Amino acid sequence: MLPHADDAITRDGKALVLAYDHGLEHGPVDFEPNPDTADPEAVWELATHDAVSAFAVQKGIAEAYYPSYEDDVSLLAKLNGTSNLWMGEPDSAVNWSADYAAELGADAVGFTLYGGSNGEVEMAEEFRDAQETAREHDMGVVMWSYPRGQGLKNDTSPDTIAYAARLGLELGADIAKVKYPGSGEAMAHACEMAGPAKVVMSGGSKTDDRAFLETVESAIANGAAGLAVGRNVFQRENPVEILDALEAVIYEEASADEALELTGSAAVADD
Amino acid sequence: MLPHADDAITRDGKALVLAYDHGLEHGPVDFEPNPDTADPEAVWELATHDAVSAFAVQKGIAEAYYPSYEDDVSLLAKLNGTSNLWMGEPDSAVNWSADYAAELGADAVGFTLYGGSNGEVEMAEEFRDAQETAREHDMGVVMWSYPRGQGLKNDTSPDTIAYAARLGLELGADIAKVKYPGSGEAMAHACEMAGPAKVVMSGGSKTDDRAFLETVESAIANGAAGLAVGRNVFQRENPVEILDALEAVIYEEASADEALELTGSAAVADD
Amino acid sequence: MLPHADDAITRDGKALVLAYDHGLEHGPVDFEPNPDTADPEAVWELATHDAVSAFAVQKGIAEAYYPSYEDDVSLLAKLNGTSNLWMGEPDSAVNWSADYAAELGADAVGFTLYGGSNGEVEMAEEFRDAQETAREHDMGVVMWSYPRGQGLKNDTSPDTIAYAARLGLELGADIAKVKYPGSGEAMAHACEMAGPAKVVMSGGSKTDDRAFLETVESAIANGAAGLAVGRNVFQRENPVEILDALEAVIYEEASADEALELTGSAAVADD
Amino acid sequence: MLPHADDAITRDGKALVLAYDHGLEHGPVDFEPNPDTADPEAVWELATHDAVSAFAVQKGIAEAYYPSYEDDVSLLAKLNGTSNLWMGEPDSAVNWSADYAAELGADAVGFTLYGGSNGEVEMAEEFRDAQETAREHDMGVVMWSYPRGQGLKNDTSPDTIAYAARLGLELGADIAKVKYPGSGEAMAHACEMAGPAKVVMSGGSKTDDRAFLETVESAIANGAAGLAVGRNVFQRENPVEILDALEAVIYEEASADEALELTGSAAVADD
Amino acid sequence: MLPHADDAITRDGKALVLAYDHGLEHGPVDFEPNPDTADPEAVWELATHDAVSAFAVQKGIAEAYYPSYEDDVSLLAKLNGTSNLWMGEPDSAVNWSADYAAELGADAVGFTLYGGSNGEVEMAEEFRDAQETAREHDMGVVMWSYPRGQGLKNDTSPDTIAYAARLGLELGADIAKVKYPGSGEAMAHACEMAGPAKVVMSGGSKTDDRAFLETVESAIANGAAGLAVGRNVFQRENPVEILDALEAVIYEEASADEALELTGSAAVADD
Repeated sequence: MLPHADDAITRDGKALVLAYDHGLEHGPVDFEPNPDTADPEAVWELATHDAVSAFAVQKGIAEAYYPSYEDDVSLLAKLNGTSNLWMGEPDSAVNWSADYAAELGADAVGFTLYGGSNGEVEMAEEFRDAQETAREHDMGVVMWSYPRGQGLKNDTSPDTIAYAARLGLELGADIAKVKYPGSGEAMAHACEMAGPAKVVMSGGSKTDDRAFLETVESAIANGAAGLAVGRNVFQRENPVEILDALEAVIYEEASADEALELTGSAAVADD
Repeated sequence: MLPHADDAITRDGKALVLAYDHGLEHGPVDFEPNPDTADPEAVWELATHDAVSAFAVQKGIAEAYYPSYEDDVSLLAKLNGTSNLWMGEPDSAVNWSADYAAELGADAVGFTLYGGSNGEVEMAEEFRDAQETAREHDMGVVMWSYPRGQGLKNDTSPDTIAYAARLGLELGADIAKVKYPGSGEAMAHACEMAGPAKVVMSGGSKTDDRAFLETVESAIANGAAGLAVGRNVFQRENPVEILDALEAVIYEEASADEALELTGSAAVADD
Repeated sequence: MLPHADDAITRDGKALVLAYDHGLEHGPVDFEPNPDTADPEAVWELATHDAVSAFAVQKGIAEAYYPSYEDDVSLLAKLNGTSNLWMGEPDSAVNWSADYAAELGADAVGFTLYGGSNGEVEMAEEFRDAQETAREHDMGVVMWSYPRGQGLKNDTSPDTIAYAARLGLELGADIAKVKYPGSGEAMAHACEMAGPAKVVMSGGSKTDDRAFLETVESAIANGAAGLAVGRNVFQRENPVEILDALEAVIYEEASADEALELTGSAAVADD
Repeated sequence: MLPHADDAITRDGKALVLAYDHGLEHGPVDFEPNPDTADPEAVWELATHDAVSAFAVQKGIAEAYYPSYEDDVSLLAKLNGTSNLWMGEPDSAVNWSADYAAELGADAVGFTLYGGSNGEVEMAEEFRDAQETAREHDMGVVMWSYPRGQGLKNDTSPDTIAYAARLGLELGADIAKVKYPGSGEAMAHACEMAGPAKVVMSGGSKTDDRAFLETVESAIANGAAGLAVGRNVFQRENPVEILDALEAVIYEEASADEALELTGSAAVADD
Repeated sequence: MLPHADDAITRDGKALVLAYDHGLEHGPVDFEPNPDTADPEAVWELATHDAVSAFAVQKGIAEAYYPSYEDDVSLLAKLNGTSNLWMGEPDSAVNWSADYAAELGADAVGFTLYGGSNGEVEMAEEFRDAQETAREHDMGVVMWSYPRGQGLKNDTSPDTIAYAARLGLELGADIAKVKYPGSGEAMAHACEMAGPAKVVMSGGSKTDDRAFLETVESAIANGAAGLAVGRNVFQRENPVEILDALEAVIYEEASADEALELTGSAAVADD
């Protein structure tokens, strides 16, 4: 964790990372709720929304579009990732070198660590290389800190998420992306464990507007710097509306209720 | 995926990749239907056909002949591959470094990824190195995206092929080579998932002229940029005729019927 | 072992290493007895105590704070370490390159070797790289020499600890950190086996003031150069008091009794 | 396969490779029939025979003697090899880097590939490095193409040997060394599959003069460029005589009968 | 094997290597018979004896003392080695790079190869790197050639030791250190198999003066260049006496009887 290393991917110290690596991690099935989002350009357009402080994509998506968006989008190069075609112990291929991410102009690198998996040692060493190369190029470092594997029955328990957040700090991430640990209190604990490193909550699978915004509000109120989100934005009928709402909650300390006014579901849930 | 990176191996944005690495992947048995084709020179001559936008071979075949054909053939350096003498979990050796491919004058590199196999993580990382080195030398990148392995019962299902095409885009290929997913509709879906990356259909084992050309017509009509083919050309009695026909279907939007006029099997199937 | 290589992390040839990598190795649970210590700054402040000759942390903790403390704290870069989320055979990821440790200004590197584990060979080779890189940058080398694994039933037996100390010398550490082998005599033997390399006793889990200081007194009296301690300092109600006491025992040859006068538990144990 | 890359280890396009790596591969037992041949100097002297177009040895044998023979012997640096003390799945250590072979003045490198073994992928990648480094130094490349392993019941079947020869061509060898596939017809097929790469027959274990020379005659008559031989030369009572005979068969198109006149066994078999 | 590469660690072509890596390989137990020898300085003093042509130690022991002894001792850098805390298949960590050995001023490198073990292939490749780096720095190369592992029931049989000696030659060692194969005849055979490479007999565990010197006499008389010895020197009550005796046997062709006159056990065994 290096002070200010994440400046280019945060806004007033807060962060909304729009993630769009689902085509690799989950496959085309994630685009089915909103088929237009299979087209990367549609999601790059979303990434130009003022609420989005960084856009996380794999290498191929960056090569194809970032030159056209470099003035409007902060690029978070997600370096590793693996298809879910593979059924083995959790692991993740390093698909993108940090050097090449820098060459493409990335503002930060993103890296998944499956703490507790049989791949933990190898992944941590790959993270080391990525993190230190990021430092050479003045890029920020975001860790997707996702404990999983044989020893972990419930990977969103408060203790596990607090440990996950701490791993981000100890190993040199500027921002740790963790799952929501189920309560504001647990989130506060995780944020405290991350010390000066920021914590962003992982968006997870799609939920309704109110539930989603209330969780984000709780996370922010308890010390999280923001949110990293994919499906809960691009699988919605109106992704811009939810980005408007998230902007209010994350950067303007609006309540979920206030933010819902900015969406079509102020009165009724839309799914 | 980098815009225009595949220009040297496409023609008007379309592609007919003639592949000739069967001596490594399958062994001499593939030359039996047309024994002359065991002689690489015979197939290099075919590769000079106007229809062929790139010729995919292993290193040894390129070293021996490419200097004599560099003015007439675009070289697609197939970097990995493994004999079928080996009975283990799908994997593929990197037999050719991207640097040396560049030194020999290759226009692009080709690389197989067995998504879903136990080798997926390692192969993806080898692909990363090849892809990034290709960028240094301004070579295009083609991924043979072939999901297989323990978790995959049917590797030509529409969902699998769509995922395969998307992997090409996400991981940085300019062209994804995938198997035909059984219908034009499924092919269209796969092409859509590849976004700006091109999709070429894999020729597969030899079929009769009509069946083959109709499949190619369907692929082209549904968004494929073309075809990568070996046995369906060089195992035929008259490979030039089928190349004439493929040229019509791929570059001139001819129907299979129209193209069949260019072959000896307009009226009757030749095998 | 290179004469004087440890000068920057010792004081008059003695050492008190304050270790604070528990957030990685054990997780947030270690901060529960004294919740303020989850905040790295609180422990960095402790590290400025005159008794502390070196502060051992992982990379992220160093990046975030060392620039503010470089005049007051000697940095011992703990290069490897692994979460206890992982349940496999003992192993440790190299989370920090020695080169980057040097770039951040570290005075020495610290490295765990699990002699006797299935990871011994690999860890020893990683230690080699770290040790030799440390020499290039004039950094000292401390080995956490912790035999464990399938072949080791009792890893604090006198023979095991003597072997552990010798491994430090043979493999090139300047200081070997070993567990207390149960008696002063055994400690003396271990120190003798380390030859010119220094031996520091590992603090272990928290015990009461008297028991702890008596063990340290015994270690020092029997040739140990000092102590590497974490929980026995930062988990106490008054860490400064125990540092005062340790300073007396380690650097001023005070007895445990004399040193207890400096703590609140001269008369009664505080836990 | 690079045209003319093997010029330094062939004579008029033909080859007789004298191999002497048996001390590594089989151990001293191979020297028992002719104990003098345990002394490398005795075999280096044989290698100066005009019939010998290249001498294949491991690094230690080259270091010790090649400086004294560099004017009279073409050095084929056998880069990999493993003792038969090891009982595992076929594999071979790379004992000699191609760079150091070049530094010692080698004319070519030799490399074993066990196609079909569990080591195939790794060995092929090691071959890649050796082959490409050989190109940097203008050294020729010879592949000992020896399919073996769990999937291969009979490793000298015509199909397997034809595949072996083809692997040499595809992967970039200038010369493929294969076992005799049992008939002239099968040898012709293997040579055809190697295309422009040369094929040399492996000498194998010692047989009588007539049987041996008839096999060589058959191989040459069916397209082989020559022979790679060890035991069938140095285990004989009179190795020079058999080299005289081989010279006649390989370079002068003599029949086995004619060549036998040059040996002491024109009328009777000598063993 | 490179002629004269071992000049700095031999004397008139003969060698007495004093080995002192037991603290790593066996642990402190080896110092118990003569506790003073746990202090490396005591053994460095022994190494200044004229009989000692090279002193073999691990990196830490060299770093600490060699600068004080470089005028009086030839340093043989033992690069690999592993504690016997580990219970797995024989393997050995490379604890010291050849480059760093050269930087410290080593005259030669020493390397263990467990031929026949599951680690053979990897160890042979590590030896390759060490051997070739040694050549760059004009250092000699000594192989501890110790066949062992699942396939080897009796690792001191004449055939195994002859093979071990040959491995030294083939793989590029200047000196092969092998166990005594039980008879002078078998030793002569092993030395013959090593060709121009020298063979030194391994001292093994401590035996009485007469038995030990007679074995050394037999080895020398049968072609061995000398001895590599640790325990049979430093575990004795009077190590200098036995060095005197060994000097006579190795360099002056004295008989064991004559040499015993130089020790206190001319008439009676001392243990």
